[in-house]
Amino acid sequence: MKIINLDHNSSRPLLPEVKAAMVTAIERDYHNPASQHQEGERAAAALEDARESVARLLNCANPKEIVFTSGGTESVNHAVKGAALANAEKGKHIVISNIEHNAVIRSARRLQSMGFKVTSVPVDAQGRVDPQAVAKAVTGETVLVSIMHSNNETGTIQPIEEIARLTREKKIVLHTDAVDSVGVVPMDVQALGVDLLSFAANSFHGPAGVGGLYIRRGTRVFPLLEGGVQEHNKRAGSENLIGIIGAGAAARETLAHLPQWSHHTLALKRRLLDRLPAAVDEVIVNTHPEHSLPNLVSLSLRYIEGESVMLMLDDEGFAVSTRSACATGSLRASHVLTAIGLDHADAQGTLVISFGKDNTEEDVDRFLEALRRTVATLRNMSPLYRKATNGSA
Amino acid sequence: MKIINLDHNSSRPLLPEVKAAMVTAIERDYHNPASQHQEGERAAAALEDARESVARLLNCANPKEIVFTSGGTESVNHAVKGAALANAEKGKHIVISNIEHNAVIRSARRLQSMGFKVTSVPVDAQGRVDPQAVAKAVTGETVLVSIMHSNNETGTIQPIEEIARLTREKKIVLHTDAVDSVGVVPMDVQALGVDLLSFAANSFHGPAGVGGLYIRRGTRVFPLLEGGVQEHNKRAGSENLIGIIGAGAAARETLAHLPQWSHHTLALKRRLLDRLPAAVDEVIVNTHPEHSLPNLVSLSLRYIEGESVMLMLDDEGFAVSTRSACATGSLRASHVLTAIGLDHADAQGTLVISFGKDNTEEDVDRFLEALRRTVATLRNMSPLYRKATNGSA
Repeated sequence: MKIINLDHNSSRPLLPEVKAAMVTAIERDYHNPASQHQEGERAAAALEDARESVARLLNCANPKEIVFTSGGTESVNHAVKGAALANAEKGKHIVISNIEHNAVIRSARRLQSMGFKVTSVPVDAQGRVDPQAVAKAVTGETVLVSIMHSNNETGTIQPIEEIARLTREKKIVLHTDAVDSVGVVPMDVQALGVDLLSFAANSFHGPAGVGGLYIRRGTRVFPLLEGGVQEHNKRAGSENLIGIIGAGAAARETLAHLPQWSHHTLALKRRLLDRLPAAVDEVIVNTHPEHSLPNLVSLSLRYIEGESVMLMLDDEGFAVSTRSACATGSLRASHVLTAIGLDHADAQGTLVISFGKDNTEEDVDRFLEALRRTVATLRNMSPLYRKATNGSA
Repeated sequence: MKIINLDHNSSRPLLPEVKAAMVTAIERDYHNPASQHQEGERAAAALEDARESVARLLNCANPKEIVFTSGGTESVNHAVKGAALANAEKGKHIVISNIEHNAVIRSARRLQSMGFKVTSVPVDAQGRVDPQAVAKAVTGETVLVSIMHSNNETGTIQPIEEIARLTREKKIVLHTDAVDSVGVVPMDVQALGVDLLSFAANSFHGPAGVGGLYIRRGTRVFPLLEGGVQEHNKRAGSENLIGIIGAGAAARETLAHLPQWSHHTLALKRRLLDRLPAAVDEVIVNTHPEHSLPNLVSLSLRYIEGESVMLMLDDEGFAVSTRSACATGSLRASHVLTAIGLDHADAQGTLVISFGKDNTEEDVDRFLEALRRTVATLRNMSPLYRKATNGSA
């Protein structure tokens, strides 16, 4: 059975150009880019070529502002821990939001155990951080603000530019976790005004396990991986050159095609939202109507469990997600969904649908039909639903 | 011009089986192993298959003791910082040697800045740590001993088993950086008795940017990368599955062929050492005659600079190294070579030759001939050499 991928947030297929670049790199069998002989220099040239492509995707002032990492999680740990520790003599307070990815939350907790204070600002019912709330949270001791660019469960996009105006004025380092945004919406680090930005290549059809951290020139950050002098002394360790070459190819293709991909997925998202009420009732849409990723819809199906829906849809050939793939196996309700005001029961009924450039209108229609059947079956077995609808009938 | 690789320490070519496995993985386009649907489960199965292959290469008691990382440097940072911080309530003292890789040294320095004391034990003139020196360095506050398995510049192998008997008795965590040993000599974590062991897949003909940390069951270590629940909650972040699949294939081939590869490179090493005196005079062999990697020779050519030799050999088609590739660009004399008693001038004249399974006797003979010419040319221009040889004539 062909699986219809409606879970691009967890994994996007590699582009043909990315596959070709990686296969060529494998056959080419590059030497270590740090080696000083000709073979090393050829590898170093391939590395810098990829760095330039990624820097262009983010509109960096200089390719050297890009440090390659093993993915979004390493980038976030590097940014949050590295910026807080490097600036600790100025103060030991950081500000995050309460819908951050666990990479930010757990990095902040680690800093807490080292004596930092952490303020977590709330979001409104639509999942947005109010820049004024950040302004109020900041003190004379604040050395870092870390607010995600878009949320991986709701797709809601945060007002980073406004927050950046505030942090620049106060000379506080601003990091944004843009793992779910880079490759889905245009990204311009200079216009955005951030000092640090985390991203992952698999968000823009590159390989998993490759990512990067944008470090604006002059930003003080301790390295997370220490040892050799790779990555301009900012991140030690022999580079995953095959993966990085894949990321470079993915960046070039994404830069060329992103407007068209966004336009396409936004049309699918609108189709889904328009036709959803006819397929299922008692559904809450968690995605911001205006400020959200063009490819993502988060739905909470009341009275049933998202995990059961996901597994039944899987049997019918649809890959969807109930929450961040990184949190799989955790039985707790999502901190993101409770933060936007859902009660625990509704949060458990959540499905995240994330479209990719190759999805079609037919995928949406077939999905809605499968969702209708699945929800009807599960609610038929749900005493909660019977009680609620008997009560209202 | 075909380049003869005598710098396998910096980079080993991918095995054909590794290339094939990685190309298949690229074509297969795996989903995220953390996703709960069928596509995610297929990716998770491929991940666990690679983990089992790597665990067999190291003779782990359980594949879950292997945590995949982005390479040797991440593994070392994870081990050293993670074990020290996780056990800090017992004491804040760690013991390392003065010939460790910079990944260990810089991780130790970071811990120092956090209030840890670091004792660095010296080595003898042949580059070996005396287990009694470690015994003397250990105090009631010691929570971690980190001694490398083999040195990347001299090839000298350390008496880890003896050190392990000491640390186990005192219930101190023992980490060994085995990045240059795994894939070159047989490795058995159970016989060795270590708690933590760092390795990199490119040392056993897998891809660069992939490695792992062996964590003996029950060893307390904080994660370095925090966020999602990947790698049994020990290392967050979406996995570099293509690279890990390559590492798994590399581990299987290495386990099957290592004795034959070692035998072959040892014969080349002996040939080089036997014929060296006829090619060049005034040369110091830094590699331990008995306890050293079977594929590595470190030579210090007196009165000339290793970098000049390396560049001239490069022009003649030989890739060799002057020191750790990770330290390229640093102008300081190698801390490893000064630790074994070389003066700065001799340390600057060092070449590291590391053989691989595909090198031939002809490679050795042609290298020696090129080395003879290169050294003669450079010494002809060297006032130091003229002075020394006139003086002795």
